[in-house]
Formats: sequence, structure tokens, C-alpha cells
Amino acid sequence: MIRTVGYAAKHSFTGLHRYEFEREEARPNEVEIEVLFCGVCHSDIHQVKNEWSNTVYPCVPGHEVVGRVTKTGSAVTRHQVGDLVGVGCMMDSCRKCEACQSGEENYCEGPNSWLATYNGPMVPAAKSPDNTNTYGRDNTFGGYSTSLVVPEDFVVKIPTGLAPEAAAPILCAGVTTFSPMRHWKVKAGDKVGILGFGGLGNMAIKLALALGADVYAFTSKSEKINEATRLNATGIVEDDEDALAAHKGSFDFILSTIPEKHDLNPFLTLLKRNASLVVVGALEPMKPVNNQLVAFRRNSIGGSLIGSIAETQEVLDFCAANGIAPDIEIIDIANINDAYSKVEKGEVRFRYVIDMSTLRRD
Amino acid sequence: MIRTVGYAAKHSFTGLHRYEFEREEARPNEVEIEVLFCGVCHSDIHQVKNEWSNTVYPCVPGHEVVGRVTKTGSAVTRHQVGDLVGVGCMMDSCRKCEACQSGEENYCEGPNSWLATYNGPMVPAAKSPDNTNTYGRDNTFGGYSTSLVVPEDFVVKIPTGLAPEAAAPILCAGVTTFSPMRHWKVKAGDKVGILGFGGLGNMAIKLALALGADVYAFTSKSEKINEATRLNATGIVEDDEDALAAHKGSFDFILSTIPEKHDLNPFLTLLKRNASLVVVGALEPMKPVNNQLVAFRRNSIGGSLIGSIAETQEVLDFCAANGIAPDIEIIDIANINDAYSKVEKGEVRFRYVIDMSTLRRD
Repeated sequence: MIRTVGYAAKHSFTGLHRYEFEREEARPNEVEIEVLFCGVCHSDIHQVKNEWSNTVYPCVPGHEVVGRVTKTGSAVTRHQVGDLVGVGCMMDSCRKCEACQSGEENYCEGPNSWLATYNGPMVPAAKSPDNTNTYGRDNTFGGYSTSLVVPEDFVVKIPTGLAPEAAAPILCAGVTTFSPMRHWKVKAGDKVGILGFGGLGNMAIKLALALGADVYAFTSKSEKINEATRLNATGIVEDDEDALAAHKGSFDFILSTIPEKHDLNPFLTLLKRNASLVVVGALEPMKPVNNQLVAFRRNSIGGSLIGSIAETQEVLDFCAANGIAPDIEIIDIANINDAYSKVEKGEVRFRYVIDMSTLRRD
Repeated sequence: MIRTVGYAAKHSFTGLHRYEFEREEARPNEVEIEVLFCGVCHSDIHQVKNEWSNTVYPCVPGHEVVGRVTKTGSAVTRHQVGDLVGVGCMMDSCRKCEACQSGEENYCEGPNSWLATYNGPMVPAAKSPDNTNTYGRDNTFGGYSTSLVVPEDFVVKIPTGLAPEAAAPILCAGVTTFSPMRHWKVKAGDKVGILGFGGLGNMAIKLALALGADVYAFTSKSEKINEATRLNATGIVEDDEDALAAHKGSFDFILSTIPEKHDLNPFLTLLKRNASLVVVGALEPMKPVNNQLVAFRRNSIGGSLIGSIAETQEVLDFCAANGIAPDIEIIDIANINDAYSKVEKGEVRFRYVIDMSTLRRD
């Protein structure tokens, strides 16, 4: 067993505190990773607070993990000790269903769906057909910890040219916004709108610009206008009726990264005929959509869930090749609860990344 | 001027009554049509009762019109006196916008959008940029009347092999369900679900079967089960949790023809990865959709509005070639208000078609 230190929540109301636990040694197909950096995702907060009513405690969050390989199982061929690697939201999948066979493990249709890097299988045994427990466990402990043990196929390579701390948020925020842009075929010259301006919005603007799109941010807060300007957004659309009306029917694609229930209707009117608005931030019931706004231009409202392992590697390589990286602020793990408060208040225009060496110093 | 008799509503609460009016003579590019049959669409009722808050009175409904050409303008080349023809929801469009140029007049982006066969332009002058009135009129009078005058490009041919009375509902109910099946590429072997069981649902089941799909109706009312069986639906899924659960993640396409606000969430769970649910019946705010259900299989919820003129001709020819036609009941126009009541109560599993010769006998 591997003695590990992490930060865990024991209940929905306790916040995160130092927590010692043991991980199983790497199996033949697995690698052991020393965690260097871990991004702080808004979904970590939802999960820690049990806002999706599915949290398994203790909860050690963290699914934007960058680290160095410290040990490889006997069958491992893709990674070597010393490699700089990343682990995102998934650490395994059924590998047999049509989605897995098609390289879309993030939509794994196995009885327990994919195994999340923390909080265990996406479909826990109790909710699976015949009480199935494919992965042999109900919980997993994520990257807010000193080490991680992961099957090699779910470990991606951090390309040279990307700072390890900046690579971390790409593993969730990056691929979550990149995957739908690929699936819905965002291309050079497209007019793309990004709703929401947190960690996902920040990455989405940078990625869409790098894809050659004209990228518009929606906001009326001067602080966010400055931020969008700094990111070289093509334009900023103020959140009022007249400003929106001026862009009616002109967008090829809109991505909503807003992490909570919101109203899509004002943005549906901005789509071109046959165009889509895709929601990645809010995994909950949305405000009612007026189908008249959807039908009159044959639009679609889609949803998308993170991205595949191949897309995760692709977006890392894309960022390195295009010289883009998320805006981050590195924190000491002792400040994690304070960081959560700031993210929840919507005050954060960048991604917090925990320097995991601060955990060792505890 | 052409002396015309029709049935009109003068206010939202009056019902329909005999109404005499004059139509302008056919212009060079127009044909005059003697109306033989006109289908009764649920949207006629919405419009007559001003349920979309946009009705221009007097309102002469009717956009499933089959008749015979009685006069042709000097420039008409597509139709001849005596031809059996049809007119659907549109009687003109701007013909200049990208949608019109792409043969998708039903999404016309001109300042007044398309000119509806009744109730005038889809975007009335008062709601258009600069108070534009492209078509020179705020109202149009539909097919609940003895004659119609329509630009030849918006007149389709009724193929031999289709009874004229049965062709009428294809002009709206048929193309409204056929167009999204074409756009979302429903093909042989697909598993297709149809929600709603009125005039649109009836056509949707027949068209999807003729496209080679396995077609499932959703209902738990024995009367509707019998009806779906009569239509040779591949299966019937009862509207309860267990029955729906058995079909989880298995549908390639679901079309909702329900003509009012409803809950899509139970049906979203039935879609395969990357599949779409398209709403054509309800043009209003829907119940809140849980984006978790959408994102977890990368689904989309689309809307679609009638179909193009080319698709209208295509679906007529498709019905003739495949020997399918809507189930109809022919009524005397004097019974129109009673027919409306029955449609509103959801009692009608077929399409009412008005025999317009009964109007002449008044």
C-alpha cells in the first residue's frame, strides 16, 4: 500500500481538511504518479458540498492532475518513470461498450459508466443494473493528494512547451470546452459566443480564438469587459436587450460555461439558422426554453460532458502548439477553502491551481 | 377582384362564421385556385383564439389547401388551368436571404420572414426593422375559403395516386414531421420515437415507417394503443417509469408532436449517445430540461418549423410512391367549430379535412 496524504471533506458542510489514507500499489497496467499540481474545478465544489446528491465521503477532490511518473506496472508501455503526465476526470472506463470502442470513453455505457478520478464510478453499484460493481470500488480519491495510481491508458502526456502548473486546468476546463467545439465543428471565421467567464470561459475564449473563430464574450460588468479585452476577444456583447438584438441570428455556435441554472432564451435568438447552443457548465434543470425560438431557425440545444482521452491529449498538444494556456493563480493547499469561497462568489476570472508541494510541508 | 366566401373569426372568442371578402386578381406570376379541400391544423385553433398573441382579425384559417388551378398569370410556367395543386403554410418569401437562396424558405430571414398563407407575414411590419412591409399587406386569408391566389413557386403538385382530400394534411402535418426526419437523417433500421398522437403524430408514424425505421409510440391510453397497433407501429412504450427504463439509451431519434408545453426529461434518457429529440408541436416555453440528461450522452434538443417548398413536394411524392396517406375525416364547413372542440380535447386521432364544396352550398 502507498501511504498518501490528501485533503478531504468528511461531510457536505465541513470543508476540506488534511486526510491520510492508503492507495493500492500499481497493478501491471497502472502507473504511480507523484502529484505536482492540481487544478480547482467548480465541480469539485459541487461535489464536496454534495450539490449533485451523489457524493461518497470522505471526498478527496481533484481531476486536473499533473505529476511525474514514479513507478510503472510490469505491463506498462506508454509511460516511463520520470515522464511528466496528466490525469483528467476519468481514470478508467468499461472499454467494451460502443462508446468506449469508438474512443468516446467519456460517454461510457458500461454498467457503471466511467470511473471518475474521484468519487468513484459515474454510475455507482446501487444505481447500476443488477448492483454491478465493475471497478470493485464505490469511491476513488483524486488529485488533492500526494500520489495517484491510474491505468496507463487514462494517463496523458504533458507536451514540452506547456508549464506543468498551466497544463493542469486543460485536463478538465480545456477539454470540456474543446470537445464540443470539435464535435460541433467550430472553424476559422465562425462567430462564436462564450457564456460565463470562470475557468471554463477563460479556456473557451482562448481555444476558440486559436481555432480561428471570431469570439464574443457576453457581460456587462466592467471588470469582465476588461478581462475579455485582455484575452483579445473579438467583441463583447453587453447583457441588455438592445445589445443582444444587434447580434440577432448571427452566431455559428454558442457555448455556455455558466456553472448553474440560467436562461438560454436571450441567447437562442442570436443563433444562425441550423446553429447550436451547447451547455457544458450547468448539470441541472435549466430555466424553461421557448421552443418557438428554437424551431424558427431550426436550432439545437446540446449538452456535452468533458471529452475523451484522445481529445484530452489533442487539446494539450493544441495548446502547446498554439502557445496558449489558462490563466492561473497558484495556491497553497492550506488556502483551498478560501479559494472555494471566491470561486463560488464568481469573483475568479482564472483557475486556481494547487501547488501540491505545499501539502507535503504540512 | 375575386368575390370569395370563407369562414372567419372576427375575435378570439367568436369561433368561425361565414365571411365574404374580395381577393386581388392573380398577378403575372400567380395562379388562382378553386379550393376543393382544406385540412384542419391544431395551429389554426391556436391562431383563431390568438393563443400566440399575434392574430390579425378577421382570421380566415387554412394552410393545408388542395384545389384546382382556374387561372394562371401571364408569366406562369409551372402550372396549367385544371392542374390539381396544393398550398401549404407559406405563400411567399423574401427570395433573397441566405435561407431562401438555399431553398429553405421556411426559415426566411427577410425583414418580414415568409408570408403565411393566412395571418400575413411571419414578422409583421410593426415588428420588422424600419417598419418594413415587404409583401404590402398585414393580413392574408387562408384556405377555409372558395378560392386562393398564390405565386406559382409556392404552389406544389398533387401527384397522381394521392386522393386530393388525403393530400391536404400532408401540406402541413406531413412536411412538418418529414422535414426534421430528413434533416436529422432518419434512415432504415433507426429506432424512432414519436410523442403525441394527433394529426402530426399520425403522419409521423407513417412517414418514419416508410423510411424503414422501427417506430415506437408513447402512450398508456388503451385507445391510443389500439390506434398505434392499427398503424403498424413497431412498438408501444407505456408512459410509466419502468416501461421507459427498458428503452433507456436506445433511440436514434425522437420527434415530439405534442402541441403544448410538456416535459422532455423522461424521453431524453431514451436517446442514444449523440442522438437528438426534436420538438415540432409546441411553439412555446417548455418545462425545464435537466442538462445533466442532455450532456451525459451528448444529446441535442432541436426545433423545426414546417418544411421548405421542395420538401413539401418531396413528401407528397414520397407518400404517393409509398402508398401512405394521413387518416382523415371529411367534414362540412358548418361543423368546423365542433371539430375544433374535439381537436382541443385531444379526442382526434386523425386529421379533419373540410370539403369546401359544402361552403358553396351555404
